[in-house]
Amino acid sequence: MTYCVGVMLESGLIFASDSRTHAGVDDFASFCKLTSFERTGDRVIVLLSSGNLAGTQAVISILRQNGARQECQNIWSAATMFDTALLVADAMRAVDKRDGHHFSDDKIDFNASFILGGQIKGEAPRLFRLYSDGNFIEAGDQTPYFQTGETKYGKPIIDWVITRSTALNEAAKCVLVSFESTMRSNLSVGMPIDLICYKLDSLAVTMRRRFDPGDVYFSTLGTEWSAGTREVFGRLPGLDW
Amino acid sequence: MTYCVGVMLESGLIFASDSRTHAGVDDFASFCKLTSFERTGDRVIVLLSSGNLAGTQAVISILRQNGARQECQNIWSAATMFDTALLVADAMRAVDKRDGHHFSDDKIDFNASFILGGQIKGEAPRLFRLYSDGNFIEAGDQTPYFQTGETKYGKPIIDWVITRSTALNEAAKCVLVSFESTMRSNLSVGMPIDLICYKLDSLAVTMRRRFDPGDVYFSTLGTEWSAGTREVFGRLPGLDW
Repeated sequence: MTYCVGVMLESGLIFASDSRTHAGVDDFASFCKLTSFERTGDRVIVLLSSGNLAGTQAVISILRQNGARQECQNIWSAATMFDTALLVADAMRAVDKRDGHHFSDDKIDFNASFILGGQIKGEAPRLFRLYSDGNFIEAGDQTPYFQTGETKYGKPIIDWVITRSTALNEAAKCVLVSFESTMRSNLSVGMPIDLICYKLDSLAVTMRRRFDPGDVYFSTLGTEWSAGTREVFGRLPGLDW
Repeated sequence: MTYCVGVMLESGLIFASDSRTHAGVDDFASFCKLTSFERTGDRVIVLLSSGNLAGTQAVISILRQNGARQECQNIWSAATMFDTALLVADAMRAVDKRDGHHFSDDKIDFNASFILGGQIKGEAPRLFRLYSDGNFIEAGDQTPYFQTGETKYGKPIIDWVITRSTALNEAAKCVLVSFESTMRSNLSVGMPIDLICYKLDSLAVTMRRRFDPGDVYFSTLGTEWSAGTREVFGRLPGLDW
């Protein structure tokens, strides 16, 4: 399984992903699911991958390869994030067209999906969620975040804390606590966690962190959150029978 | 969908269930999923139902009908909670035997499952989780609670707060907050919520509450919990880039 979160705030964007891939409890491995395309002063594009690893890696490889070609529109030449989302969808469909029918006997789907976000000069930051068929939705004021993978454990915390106006660092903390809750409840989501906080109009990635197992900040966050929520419970009014 | 929680504490048991049943968003209804069998001074037995409503209602009806018969072992004569769990499993299998093969063409399963708990005089309180095949597991020190249905949203809160030694009222609050989180994140779980707190060795249900939509205590709990967790966030250390 996987857990990825993308958040669109007034002050920027947040991207976070775990690194666990597995095919059963005794066959798991660690792969980075966060990919960034950055040209300082021009664009920052981030992809969070979920689902079949062969599929998501192939999509990233196609985007990289096409990015090196001048003749076609690519991730470096796309004028908008919407056009970028179309490029990702095209790559997904190309992989599905090539590989999809080979899976039919094994009851495996091309189930790759992505959270895509970033900013291209001349546009505001945007955030998309691409489904495995290549169709996609865009975040708005009412729904400022997308999750993929093992989404449920960590959703209430995000719902409590994050709105469009939440500060970038506050929202980053919240996303990390959401990961902590998810990992506490589900073995299929695992560290390291990759995190990017993108500051509005910076057109550069200045805040990127990897949280490895045992990371002091991440552990502290988990401990203090756990202690704090227990304290809040202590203050909640008792039930009158 | 459904959300049910059963908790086994040193000081007693807690049972809670939502009331929403549905077959699509435009076909939902409200049914109580908490059933209790009580003979003061002798036994308190509580069942929380999940899954196919026709199936769970049939199981309860069989337990009630057999309970009125003297000639067979029944829910009133069972000497232990383990024997009670066997009776519930027998009823589940009887319903499955009668109805199960009629579903085969519709791709519907007899997917009824139960959380069963209570205390019979002479025994400590016990808590079981019965799967749809009638097999079951029993709660222990390491895992003092069971959930069924839409379990993930409300699990982290229970994991943070509840241990075997948590006080009955504290755990009841926690379970209610777990319901609040679940309903906030998922439309398929809905009020009213039925709650029973069973006090160790009381052999009577003295604390039972139904929380209807708009219930003042439940709303307060949600508001204060939400405000409190935001406050805890405010105190969490900021991320150092």
